[in-house]
Amino acid sequence: MQTTPQKSSQKSCFDAPNAFFTLEAKSGKARAGIFHTAHGSVQTPIFMPVGTRASVKTMTQEHLEEVGAQIILGNTYHLFLRPGEQLIERVGGGLHGFMSWKKPILTDSGGFQIFSLSALTKKSEEGVRFQSHLDGSYHLITPERSMEIQRALGSDIVMAFDECPALPSTKGELEQAVARTLRWAKRCVEVPLKSHQHLFGIIQGGLDKDLRTHCMNELCQLPFSGMAIGGLSVGEKNEEMVQFLEDFVHTMPGHRPRYLMGVGTPLDIMKAVKAGVDMFDCVLPSRNARNGQGITSQGPLSIKREEFKEDQRPLDPECECRVCQRYTRAYIRHLYAVGEYTAGTLLTYHNMAFYLRLMQKTREAIFQDKFDVFFQQFYNSYTQMGKLAN
Amino acid sequence: MQTTPQKSSQKSCFDAPNAFFTLEAKSGKARAGIFHTAHGSVQTPIFMPVGTRASVKTMTQEHLEEVGAQIILGNTYHLFLRPGEQLIERVGGGLHGFMSWKKPILTDSGGFQIFSLSALTKKSEEGVRFQSHLDGSYHLITPERSMEIQRALGSDIVMAFDECPALPSTKGELEQAVARTLRWAKRCVEVPLKSHQHLFGIIQGGLDKDLRTHCMNELCQLPFSGMAIGGLSVGEKNEEMVQFLEDFVHTMPGHRPRYLMGVGTPLDIMKAVKAGVDMFDCVLPSRNARNGQGITSQGPLSIKREEFKEDQRPLDPECECRVCQRYTRAYIRHLYAVGEYTAGTLLTYHNMAFYLRLMQKTREAIFQDKFDVFFQQFYNSYTQMGKLAN
Repeated sequence: MQTTPQKSSQKSCFDAPNAFFTLEAKSGKARAGIFHTAHGSVQTPIFMPVGTRASVKTMTQEHLEEVGAQIILGNTYHLFLRPGEQLIERVGGGLHGFMSWKKPILTDSGGFQIFSLSALTKKSEEGVRFQSHLDGSYHLITPERSMEIQRALGSDIVMAFDECPALPSTKGELEQAVARTLRWAKRCVEVPLKSHQHLFGIIQGGLDKDLRTHCMNELCQLPFSGMAIGGLSVGEKNEEMVQFLEDFVHTMPGHRPRYLMGVGTPLDIMKAVKAGVDMFDCVLPSRNARNGQGITSQGPLSIKREEFKEDQRPLDPECECRVCQRYTRAYIRHLYAVGEYTAGTLLTYHNMAFYLRLMQKTREAIFQDKFDVFFQQFYNSYTQMGKLAN
Repeated sequence: MQTTPQKSSQKSCFDAPNAFFTLEAKSGKARAGIFHTAHGSVQTPIFMPVGTRASVKTMTQEHLEEVGAQIILGNTYHLFLRPGEQLIERVGGGLHGFMSWKKPILTDSGGFQIFSLSALTKKSEEGVRFQSHLDGSYHLITPERSMEIQRALGSDIVMAFDECPALPSTKGELEQAVARTLRWAKRCVEVPLKSHQHLFGIIQGGLDKDLRTHCMNELCQLPFSGMAIGGLSVGEKNEEMVQFLEDFVHTMPGHRPRYLMGVGTPLDIMKAVKAGVDMFDCVLPSRNARNGQGITSQGPLSIKREEFKEDQRPLDPECECRVCQRYTRAYIRHLYAVGEYTAGTLLTYHNMAFYLRLMQKTREAIFQDKFDVFFQQFYNSYTQMGKLAN
């Protein structure tokens, strides 16, 4: 590892404005900004609905547009296995055309899912060999292969292929993961992408701020359009994650979008925004919806509960989404109780609308430099019902 | 059975115009008309999507509005068991409010589903005792109870509680079923409904035209707003059903809507329209959708087939629905192959749009007195692909 070139590049990464991302406002450490892609601009802070298999489960693309999704996430691991990135490129010229989604798309690198879903995995310096969780077939994903797949998918934001250790890990394990993540990052940037694609680096290092800083400084030497924090929400305590974000995020390059991968609950997201994070993704609003959970301004609500059987209120009386304007808790509870798919659709629709409107309102509060007040109001409202009803 | 009063009443039922239904045009025996309910008017011929458990499976009510549903069907048996008609009345003042559907609703009597779904059933003159297919609980549905349930549901069209024998049945069995259906019909009309509700009688009698005619003439003595043909598509050959409809339907009262229950494929429906039927319901477009079948102008299409893997055409290139305007066969096939719920939603949406547009175009052809030409064009197109691809 050379230190001299790092520092000079690090400086430019920290300080250089660029055409991709513009920081528009700050309120404390919370940021509002905008980034531009060939498929449109995205206003931050932003939540990205997860469309694992070229579909945000139970929602149509029309639904996503209605709830104001500005960018969605596709999972490279799943799409590589089925239907295969080459089919997606042949049929639709990439994921946008394949699924008929005209706005921006971010794809992950596939690494995280290989470890969480595959039957057998074998890491080496070359990459990760694994067995498909679907048919047992063997595959090798390397940094180069991940870039090739994402190139074929044609996502607007491509994520570097990293090594993400679960927490807790030993210092030695974390150091090795960071070192490999850095070597892989350098291999990733060597692979040509399509001209419209932007590559994001992923910072690893667990809860070790020094190690994270080292990883970040190294990554800043490479031509990344944005910086992600990987390896959180992977086993550590929630307070540890929040404290780490408080300490670390504000030290990240100011002129790049900051993306906290795989997080999380509305409270986690708000705390991360407070620490300076710009971008989020999580399966929570869709997965929990299919398990009967509505996310409301007064906290999560389990529609299965007996108390909602004749409740004529909408899921969230403060919500303006089409589901809350039309359907009662009693009706959605009935659909859930009898096993109608549409219960999942209505809950997911509302939850996604809730997340995206929360981001929009947060953004407005940042522009007004009133983020702390907004955060406190949200916190008080959101945690109240958690005590009462869950 | 008295014959004199029958004939005089029969005459009035056959001949008397009424405020509920207006016959607007005829082309051969095919009819176009309109009936009026407190929740809006319905233009016939019409197909009614089946919303068994207060939901047309995989579709939201917004979807139903988009595809042009004018009236939907709810199943009394299912709603009686879960969530119960009293809850529906308490929560939403009836099914319209409960499920947030402002247009007309027709409910069946529950009889057919008791026999097709319940574990144990015991018929008597009083009614039908049965065991719930859900929890094994015992219930008794009588003609009076069916009326009470449908009154609580508040549907615009209430169906009489009838006895529907499977085919083939002996002449004796059919005669007994007709006799009981008539006795039960008389009990049904004695039960007061809500002021906005219309009661339809159901003609039984299998494929026996004389028995059907007798049943119809008896029912015509009772104050029914419309006449249904029950007991078809229950085991007989398709040609037998079609021939029976050809022979019988034109003899039904001209000033009442004619409803063929539980039918069917697009071809069956078109043949029934040709015979003079006005109203249809069937689970086919939604159930087959969930099994991967798209109904197209060139016949049914199984999206599972390998040949559609990279097919960039919409489900039906001639279709103007939102699904066909946006999504490819390749994409829907992918969603189906990986098990995404949304495959069912997209296929159901298209199928329902297809059925409803077919009814709309049929209506236009009747107004132009070109039904036969329209029927032949449809038939040629629809059966062609059946030969090629299925």
